[in-house]
Amino acid sequence: MANPITQVALHERTLLVDWVDGRRSHYHYLWLRDNAPDAIDTHNGQRLIESVAIPPAICPQTVTLHADGQLEVVWAVNGSRSLFAPDWLRAHDYSQPETISTANQPLLWDATLGAHLPSADYPAVVDDRQILRDWLQAVHDYGFALLRQVPVASAALLKVVALFGYVRETNYGPYFDVKSVVSPNNLAYTGLGLSPHTDNPYRDPAPTLQLLHCLQDAAAGGDSIVVDGFAVAARLRQQAPEHFALLTRTPVTFRFRDQTTDLMAVTPLIALDSQGLIKAIRYNNRSLAPLALPPEQIEPFYAAYRALGELIASAEFQVVFKLHPGDLFIVDNERVLHGRTAFSNTGNRHLQGCYADRDGLLSTLRVLGGCSD
Amino acid sequence: MANPITQVALHERTLLVDWVDGRRSHYHYLWLRDNAPDAIDTHNGQRLIESVAIPPAICPQTVTLHADGQLEVVWAVNGSRSLFAPDWLRAHDYSQPETISTANQPLLWDATLGAHLPSADYPAVVDDRQILRDWLQAVHDYGFALLRQVPVASAALLKVVALFGYVRETNYGPYFDVKSVVSPNNLAYTGLGLSPHTDNPYRDPAPTLQLLHCLQDAAAGGDSIVVDGFAVAARLRQQAPEHFALLTRTPVTFRFRDQTTDLMAVTPLIALDSQGLIKAIRYNNRSLAPLALPPEQIEPFYAAYRALGELIASAEFQVVFKLHPGDLFIVDNERVLHGRTAFSNTGNRHLQGCYADRDGLLSTLRVLGGCSD
Repeated sequence: MANPITQVALHERTLLVDWVDGRRSHYHYLWLRDNAPDAIDTHNGQRLIESVAIPPAICPQTVTLHADGQLEVVWAVNGSRSLFAPDWLRAHDYSQPETISTANQPLLWDATLGAHLPSADYPAVVDDRQILRDWLQAVHDYGFALLRQVPVASAALLKVVALFGYVRETNYGPYFDVKSVVSPNNLAYTGLGLSPHTDNPYRDPAPTLQLLHCLQDAAAGGDSIVVDGFAVAARLRQQAPEHFALLTRTPVTFRFRDQTTDLMAVTPLIALDSQGLIKAIRYNNRSLAPLALPPEQIEPFYAAYRALGELIASAEFQVVFKLHPGDLFIVDNERVLHGRTAFSNTGNRHLQGCYADRDGLLSTLRVLGGCSD
Repeated sequence: MANPITQVALHERTLLVDWVDGRRSHYHYLWLRDNAPDAIDTHNGQRLIESVAIPPAICPQTVTLHADGQLEVVWAVNGSRSLFAPDWLRAHDYSQPETISTANQPLLWDATLGAHLPSADYPAVVDDRQILRDWLQAVHDYGFALLRQVPVASAALLKVVALFGYVRETNYGPYFDVKSVVSPNNLAYTGLGLSPHTDNPYRDPAPTLQLLHCLQDAAAGGDSIVVDGFAVAARLRQQAPEHFALLTRTPVTFRFRDQTTDLMAVTPLIALDSQGLIKAIRYNNRSLAPLALPPEQIEPFYAAYRALGELIASAEFQVVFKLHPGDLFIVDNERVLHGRTAFSNTGNRHLQGCYADRDGLLSTLRVLGGCSD
């Protein structure tokens, strides 16, 4: 027990706890009842009681600080007993601002990331859980990482997903081939350059992770480009707050159709969380449907969209690199935009791509002892 | 051509179009350039040009209304030509409020839905695309539908998913067994009652669809419960706007841990879209982590949470029904809460569950001609 409790005092709604190091904490009785060890299943950590059924004015009959440091609460309402470990109370002390600061700022990056691309080797992440953890941590921190020496074999990228989570299968299959084909149903399957974009913005929920694995790079051109959408959006927020605000509150439609598919999502380009932090970006010039906004909003929207697009296109933010056979990159598809330069149709360029979700990756990272939230 | 254009006039920033029925529409040149047929790939409908690179003050050199009704624009900037079909212009006329109203209100429901549960038979949805369409439409409209006569066989629910989309695989597998087991890692795998909840709120993105398929119902109890979370949230918004607002802006943590998994998501219980409409609800008493809010927010949060929970628990909103072998239900897991009454451990109750995503379902519905905003 790092910090024993020295004294407790019963207030009307809260229990006051003094610690040996001088800290003073307050715990609402309501909160204590809701989170007491006897309310939680010991096997699976899930709550066994109905939080909303706890009487709002619940209070203890007695509170006893035992010699072993445990705190026992006997509840007035039905005489049940709850025994709290001091370490647990200390760890969940919401009286301290540092405990309740949830805003973990992402590490924003620009073109200078190109000098030291976060990367690892596939054989190493397979063999060594610490190397896997560090690679997943890079995905968490930067929303982007490279993996080299992945077997140059069809579907090998699925083995990479299996290291941390699960494939999100879509109408494109569990994985898909990115190469130049005749009559493509998607511009990705041509030799055209693709400006940086997020994938599948016409899907809700959009896939939160994307992997691209290089099998052939014999075509001239076809360099990969990545851009930190959070960095770009933060810059826009700073230099043109009215443009930024407009992009967070104007829903636009993304759509994709082929013979068997008709996908559509209506969403702003920049999504904020309930605290106003940038949560997600969707940006894909190819699949934005004709704007259907009130006429007076058309020009302001295009102005804001242009301001965002100019930042995305600027050399300051673009990291450009060449994938060779066996190289794979992963992006957080709600944060990092990816694209490519045009390539010649005379040589062969062949990537395979697939989607996955962040929840599995972050879970694996936490189990490996990585920091993520 | 239902409505020919009778006349056009060039304004500074917009083209004014008069239609034979008297309607007058305005199209910004910027918008016309961005959505012109020559800017869009004819194979796949994707945009070939960079929207943000269009000069903001772009304007036509000439606009010609051809005898066949087509509108030809020759652009001043580079002399390129765009040919617009009048039907397309009419369909995308954003001068008319009805074109731009995107807010498709969901059909809210309460316990009275129990008298006529939206349902279909599996053999019929397999054989008849119209019946499939109507069943998917019910999922879209109500966020809930039953399917009967599904083969009573393990993994048969995957065939149901294959009718409209793709499984979202998770740490629970492509599908999972819901029955009482020894040392469960989840309270779902006990005989305990489960109050209405959404599944996997500790995941981001949460699965947007859930299916539950009954293989055995020999235990006493174990009735299913569903609640329209959007109806409940709308009621809360109406009767206690301050509680509602607090639940939309207070991030809380959901967490699930077992030996190989550590899933966590931080999000408000009620999510609004950029227009303030209710977009998603997460509610799961079992996996809400101890609140880590500033002390002065603890009691207000519990008060709002209780108000929401009381509505969810009220008979007014709960639809209760019994699943028999071969019955399956599907819910929109961001809208409809599901639960069950307790069941006896002496008989056998066995469900199988799986997750999927709404995007595939809505795509299939649109391809079948269903209406889904």
